[in-house]
Amino acid sequence: MNTPHLLLDRAVLERNVARLRARLDALGAPLRPHVKTAKSVDVARLLFDGGTGPITVSTLREAEAFADAGFTDVLYAVGIAPSKLDRVVALRRRGVDLVVLLDSVEQAVAVAETSVAAGAPLPALIEVDCDGHRSGVLPGSPDVIAVADALVRGGAELRGVLAHAGESYFRYDADSLAAAAEAERAAAVRVAEDLRAAGFACPVVSVGSTPTAHAARDLTGVTEVRAGNFVFFDLVMAGIGVCSVDDLALSVVVTVIGHRPDKGWILTDGGWTATSRDRGTARQPVDQGYGLVARLDGGVYPDLLMTDASQEHGVLSVRAGSAAPLPDLPVGTRLRVLPNHACATAAQHESYRVVDGEAVTTWPRVNGW
Amino acid sequence: MNTPHLLLDRAVLERNVARLRARLDALGAPLRPHVKTAKSVDVARLLFDGGTGPITVSTLREAEAFADAGFTDVLYAVGIAPSKLDRVVALRRRGVDLVVLLDSVEQAVAVAETSVAAGAPLPALIEVDCDGHRSGVLPGSPDVIAVADALVRGGAELRGVLAHAGESYFRYDADSLAAAAEAERAAAVRVAEDLRAAGFACPVVSVGSTPTAHAARDLTGVTEVRAGNFVFFDLVMAGIGVCSVDDLALSVVVTVIGHRPDKGWILTDGGWTATSRDRGTARQPVDQGYGLVARLDGGVYPDLLMTDASQEHGVLSVRAGSAAPLPDLPVGTRLRVLPNHACATAAQHESYRVVDGEAVTTWPRVNGW
Repeated sequence: MNTPHLLLDRAVLERNVARLRARLDALGAPLRPHVKTAKSVDVARLLFDGGTGPITVSTLREAEAFADAGFTDVLYAVGIAPSKLDRVVALRRRGVDLVVLLDSVEQAVAVAETSVAAGAPLPALIEVDCDGHRSGVLPGSPDVIAVADALVRGGAELRGVLAHAGESYFRYDADSLAAAAEAERAAAVRVAEDLRAAGFACPVVSVGSTPTAHAARDLTGVTEVRAGNFVFFDLVMAGIGVCSVDDLALSVVVTVIGHRPDKGWILTDGGWTATSRDRGTARQPVDQGYGLVARLDGGVYPDLLMTDASQEHGVLSVRAGSAAPLPDLPVGTRLRVLPNHACATAAQHESYRVVDGEAVTTWPRVNGW
Repeated sequence: MNTPHLLLDRAVLERNVARLRARLDALGAPLRPHVKTAKSVDVARLLFDGGTGPITVSTLREAEAFADAGFTDVLYAVGIAPSKLDRVVALRRRGVDLVVLLDSVEQAVAVAETSVAAGAPLPALIEVDCDGHRSGVLPGSPDVIAVADALVRGGAELRGVLAHAGESYFRYDADSLAAAAEAERAAAVRVAEDLRAAGFACPVVSVGSTPTAHAARDLTGVTEVRAGNFVFFDLVMAGIGVCSVDDLALSVVVTVIGHRPDKGWILTDGGWTATSRDRGTARQPVDQGYGLVARLDGGVYPDLLMTDASQEHGVLSVRAGSAAPLPDLPVGTRLRVLPNHACATAAQHESYRVVDGEAVTTWPRVNGW
């Protein structure tokens, strides 16, 4: 097998899936997994015991590819650009219950106008800002009713509300994470109640991120939980405390191509094209460089990091301040690099090499837009 | 046209190509362009007036795809992993003069053994470290002769030497860049002379990077110049002073999807999947965030940057400390984001939308390994 390539450990993947499913079963909340991390029909089928189910997508290309594979209950969870509504209509005409997301009257008017032109109401969720992280209307803002009104009076369908606790990625203990989850739930439920009080139907209350899905203690009023990263996990999630390094299902396999003993470097054929430039752990208490380095069997070398990246070169060295020795890894040695951010690393590749005991298969990804 | 997508301005591309060609013509050094930036047969053909010529590649997949398009003089300029030699042999048997790169006796022995097994000597360049940036043997080191000896006595071919001034990306004035170019030239020429003095043929002396190719004042003893980024340029190159912002041929076209006036943010549908996570200008005197923002006609908005990126969201805001106003850009407005690092941004895409006056065409890329 050529290097670099993306290795997916199926046993770890299945354990990660079972873990979140057990949590949400206990909380009584259905999962609408976000397929943006794996972008793999095979991974999604595994989430539904070989069948299909409700999913969240980050691009219309994902929606189209998953529709081809029989996934017909789809939330497109990025604020809609009006120029994309023709593809939304085309998917709905194929029988896909595709729901869009928005947070402005401008978008609501565009969705309503397209509904009228298409002769069928397009369903939309209103995005709620629960923590100042990115987009969304603020709970209690008059924008909530204005957006709902523009949708419903204009001829579209208000399907519900959605919140995403993006700031939960910067919390480092169970109580802080649980508080982020409760803030996410409370914001979404409050806006849903405001809408219902104003006479709007609001059947869907959608929340989620991998940290909050794993930290939530109560999901009263929530109708679905979105999470995506939990299938693979990564060093950022391990740094938050949501998983351990042993739970990382994904790694990049690289080959040693050189040494600079004068500098304490081992060079590999895995550069930023293979790992991505994501340095998510740089903002965490423990900076893991471009990733921890492990043997091909998964055992992590003490304090050996991928510390620098060119386009097709990785530099491995021992963490600054560590007394760990630089291991003796001859030219040709294969290694795993455990990624900072599984979504970003996987996005650099066309497919997964899936290892399940002795069996190896290839699962394609749906990249692009 | 869907967003995000990669826009390539053909007129700027042609101007950038003409500029480097004129420089190298004046210095009397032939160009062996590095196709790792564009990864496009169409861009490479444009470099050779519609024909083919010598190229440098960063992956064997590039070598294979360019061979399919008639490029048969190919340097694979990443240290060879022995497991890749079967693909090298297969390309050479197709009639491609593919040359590999190495800097160790271990690699030289593997190349020699493969030469014997294949019944034909594989040609190799010895990589020279001219500035401590990454890989290579140090000029004057006994490793130079040891590697050459392992190659030639073992049955492979020593084709020459190669140096790459990676540290030139961190020089910010013409004299420092010219000094980096001279150090690159001097290191390569010195090792070539040492090899010749020891009785080895060393026909090729290969140097190059976009900064040094544009800064070199003398290329005596050099037989070819590698440069790749010069076709597109980017904000890192503008920060170094090798080009101006007007010379950037590549941008990412995005659509406005929302606003957070309370935070001074404009949200777009172009996240890190579209721009990459590259923050190359963060190490420069002027940090350009994830990129400068321009109108679709190319005019740059004063101090408007892409300051944050999620997977499918970009955040635009005014540079900290600037008095420039946040422009009024309604939902649906299309914008260009000028990238930090053209190689990394282009690597996130499958193809270019090439604009040439009124004409628009699509040029595919050769991604993967």
